[in-house]
Amino acid sequence: MSTNVSKATLKEVYNTIKPYVHTTPVLTSNLVNKWVGAQLFFKCENFQRAGSFKIRGATNAILNLSQKAQQKGVVTHSSGNFAQALSLAAKSIGVPAYIVMPENAPSVKIEAVKQYGGQVTLCKPTLTDREQTAQEIVHKTGATFIHPSNDTNVILGQSTAALELLTAVKSLDIIIAPVGGGGLLAGTALAAHFFEPNSIILGAEPENVNDAYLSLKKGKIVANKNTNTIADGLKTQLGPNNFPIIKQYVSSIICVSEDEIIAAMRFIYERMKIVIEPSSAVALAAIKKQSKHFANKSIGVIISGGNVDLSKLPFA
Amino acid sequence: MSTNVSKATLKEVYNTIKPYVHTTPVLTSNLVNKWVGAQLFFKCENFQRAGSFKIRGATNAILNLSQKAQQKGVVTHSSGNFAQALSLAAKSIGVPAYIVMPENAPSVKIEAVKQYGGQVTLCKPTLTDREQTAQEIVHKTGATFIHPSNDTNVILGQSTAALELLTAVKSLDIIIAPVGGGGLLAGTALAAHFFEPNSIILGAEPENVNDAYLSLKKGKIVANKNTNTIADGLKTQLGPNNFPIIKQYVSSIICVSEDEIIAAMRFIYERMKIVIEPSSAVALAAIKKQSKHFANKSIGVIISGGNVDLSKLPFA
Repeated sequence: MSTNVSKATLKEVYNTIKPYVHTTPVLTSNLVNKWVGAQLFFKCENFQRAGSFKIRGATNAILNLSQKAQQKGVVTHSSGNFAQALSLAAKSIGVPAYIVMPENAPSVKIEAVKQYGGQVTLCKPTLTDREQTAQEIVHKTGATFIHPSNDTNVILGQSTAALELLTAVKSLDIIIAPVGGGGLLAGTALAAHFFEPNSIILGAEPENVNDAYLSLKKGKIVANKNTNTIADGLKTQLGPNNFPIIKQYVSSIICVSEDEIIAAMRFIYERMKIVIEPSSAVALAAIKKQSKHFANKSIGVIISGGNVDLSKLPFA
Repeated sequence: MSTNVSKATLKEVYNTIKPYVHTTPVLTSNLVNKWVGAQLFFKCENFQRAGSFKIRGATNAILNLSQKAQQKGVVTHSSGNFAQALSLAAKSIGVPAYIVMPENAPSVKIEAVKQYGGQVTLCKPTLTDREQTAQEIVHKTGATFIHPSNDTNVILGQSTAALELLTAVKSLDIIIAPVGGGGLLAGTALAAHFFEPNSIILGAEPENVNDAYLSLKKGKIVANKNTNTIADGLKTQLGPNNFPIIKQYVSSIICVSEDEIIAAMRFIYERMKIVIEPSSAVALAAIKKQSKHFANKSIGVIISGGNVDLSKLPFA
């Protein structure tokens, strides 16, 4: 895909989705800078509509459908941020959204999707069942299936978070984003490549779900052995559309432990006074872990979202 | 006091303390506006230095001392935000700060004061003991005692949060602030009186610690019967320097239950993705409770701070 993408493509995507998304703030914190010994610029997608960057990709994917396809709606399977994002994007654009969710998804997440106008179909909590149920809806309604991360238009949409960051802050040395399915990191890498070509692009990943790290090391996609991490947004498997972009533009992926994620998350809550989800703390944890390598650098950090179960914060 | 205060006084105070404090952001949220049916503008002092508005008053109090007095330092007794604020303000200005804290204060708070450079003296957890210990330090060091809320320069310093808000947002119908000791509400009332004279000024208070509500009703200061509230910043007794200002300029005080405070706090965490302390949720709880009276109004809300014990959030 990346060969067809240009600076102009990303600008066009940005202009297309701009009316449907917030331009989120870029925050800085002296306390965090002192903690890690570098200058950090946090692109705060936790303040984004539906609470995460996902609405960018969801919006772009829907707006790239033909009018006829839009009328029939969109389908996805997700128990996380993409379910909410696709529902809200579809509602804003005025198209139906069918969301397949596992029957054991927290009721608060199911309710959130419904509040955003998504039509929820519950299924058994296996990937096969989710895919099958989504396919059935596609057949029945003619709606278009949109993958949460492994979709070209989704990836291009996600690039706009970094594009906004690079417009707001010039001459960043490094840009770092968490990696799960890879849509955010691939999009971030594209934006950085075109808009700050001298910057180094890094990914951050939980040690326990290090498929992107291993894939980059081996040069081919490696499957996750387990998904045991507090960073629930990063449990997803890296996809075949994201991987080539990540392979081409991302210098390396830093893996962090669960304790390191929680420590970084706590620091952000306590010192920056913002609510983020655990996945968003992974990038700061990576910078803290390798702070020697980041010393005095100017670093853009994508805070991916703020949808967290407040009754289960890891600060007890 | 209020007869000597003018618009020019407040401007001068603002210019005096400006180099030492953050100009905090004013946030809005469509979701919150929809929830209460009004237009809310949150002045976010949770993003302030040392995590609350208190640094404004602390800074102003110190800067109004003679150079000789400054050299001898400042003393206060507080287990809360003022302890941290006075320590950090003193450190920034370069004067010693002696902080008397009850020996049963959470170690995390004692550590925070020390980190900001405060010299901590522990005492028995009674008001008499706190006052006596502070007096002993005054005698020994010649330092000046600064009351956390019932001090003219502290009150004037606190007025600058509302002053900034009213500079950023024009024509607010209503301005509302939580009331504990009364420094913030009195300061807010002064700023509103001079800079948005047509606005209505309201206080918000926990039902369980409703001394300001009762005092306003009876026309004289009424003592708190208990201090049993999650809003730990509002347990303080209204002071004789604050009360006349509140009596003159504040239209009424709205009391809210503990459950209403927690619901408002949760809404702010979940929808606005910011970390606030329980005291800061009291004003939104008041608006929600009496939303009929606030319908379609343009309302400034002072978010007082974000210093909260993350291990004890009331969202289990």
